[in-house]
Amino acid sequence: MHRPTAGRPESRGERKERTRRAILDAALELSGETSLVALSLRQVAKEVGIVPTAFYRHFDSIEALGVALVDESFVSLRAMLRDIRRGDPAFSDVVDRSITILVEHVHRQRSHFLFIARERAAGPPAVRDAIHHEIELCERELATDLARLPATDPWSAEDLRILSNLIVMAMVATAEAIMTAPPRPDAEKAIIETARAQLRMVLIGALNWQSRT
Amino acid sequence: MHRPTAGRPESRGERKERTRRAILDAALELSGETSLVALSLRQVAKEVGIVPTAFYRHFDSIEALGVALVDESFVSLRAMLRDIRRGDPAFSDVVDRSITILVEHVHRQRSHFLFIARERAAGPPAVRDAIHHEIELCERELATDLARLPATDPWSAEDLRILSNLIVMAMVATAEAIMTAPPRPDAEKAIIETARAQLRMVLIGALNWQSRT
Repeated sequence: MHRPTAGRPESRGERKERTRRAILDAALELSGETSLVALSLRQVAKEVGIVPTAFYRHFDSIEALGVALVDESFVSLRAMLRDIRRGDPAFSDVVDRSITILVEHVHRQRSHFLFIARERAAGPPAVRDAIHHEIELCERELATDLARLPATDPWSAEDLRILSNLIVMAMVATAEAIMTAPPRPDAEKAIIETARAQLRMVLIGALNWQSRT
Repeated sequence: MHRPTAGRPESRGERKERTRRAILDAALELSGETSLVALSLRQVAKEVGIVPTAFYRHFDSIEALGVALVDESFVSLRAMLRDIRRGDPAFSDVVDRSITILVEHVHRQRSHFLFIARERAAGPPAVRDAIHHEIELCERELATDLARLPATDPWSAEDLRILSNLIVMAMVATAEAIMTAPPRPDAEKAIIETARAQLRMVLIGALNWQSRT
């Protein structure tokens, strides 16, 4: 078995990866106080303890760094969607489990979710575009899953897109509500109960929906 | 009839009101480039052409200025909700008109709506709280209106709140989508069609909803 020897000098590649990670973490933390648009490359470099020019070995700009953070954030979001998909594809049972998984992921990846919530509306254009693109991808994946359910057999592709857009929108709003909730267990519980009832309401609407093909 | 004479010297009160307006407009414009949290009192004063200390004659802080902008923004939002309420309170017909009025208001008050969208997630705490409070008030007003409809007679107060929260959430998402849409008429048309179908889906779900009283 090959194990790294304790005290083994760090390789060039490892050091580069560690600095890249430190830059991403610093940007995540610093942008939490203001927003990515107000963040300078100099501030990030200072926080990490590198000279500003060294920043460019890792990212072309603050915008490029922001897009990398969007990519990272959606790795966890996609994992969440995969978890939901893995279960029994019953149309109504899926609600409780989806919300539970969403809440778990928001807590585990709190700084990433806060970053997305903030930069979605207030970030630099390239970052906003990247977030909208990723949310659209989530909607398309969900539409593909919904298309597999027997209940949606008579539905048009357009109506599947409209439903998945509505569900993703409700999920985004729930995630944002959880992040801004006062730190009391009953506050989060109320948000979860509301989200469950809303998703059930949406699904009841969908089940009674007459698709115009 | 009393008319202000052309060339009449401006009164002290009028000048004060004009400066206050200029400060609000400058903050609205400058915060559009970054966010209110990144905006300094000095920048606003410079844009208006006043000394920084003169700022305090109008607002205690940038946060207080932000809360005043939230108040202004929701005057137009409440006017919108009043317009929707004024019409025939049929449960399904109201959808098309609601969306039309929303889109009109987003275009008319574009900078205010952009401000709300941005600061809701990325603004200073006092401004974020003010926005959440105003959105909650909108939800409560809508819940009161929904309670008057015969279709919701057997509903619990909690379910009325859940439905109005879902509708307001969909309206907020639609407004944000319109503001970030590419400037093509067909892009906006697609968002409007999606929003109409979604609200109809939600209302069909609501009409088939079995309230747990």
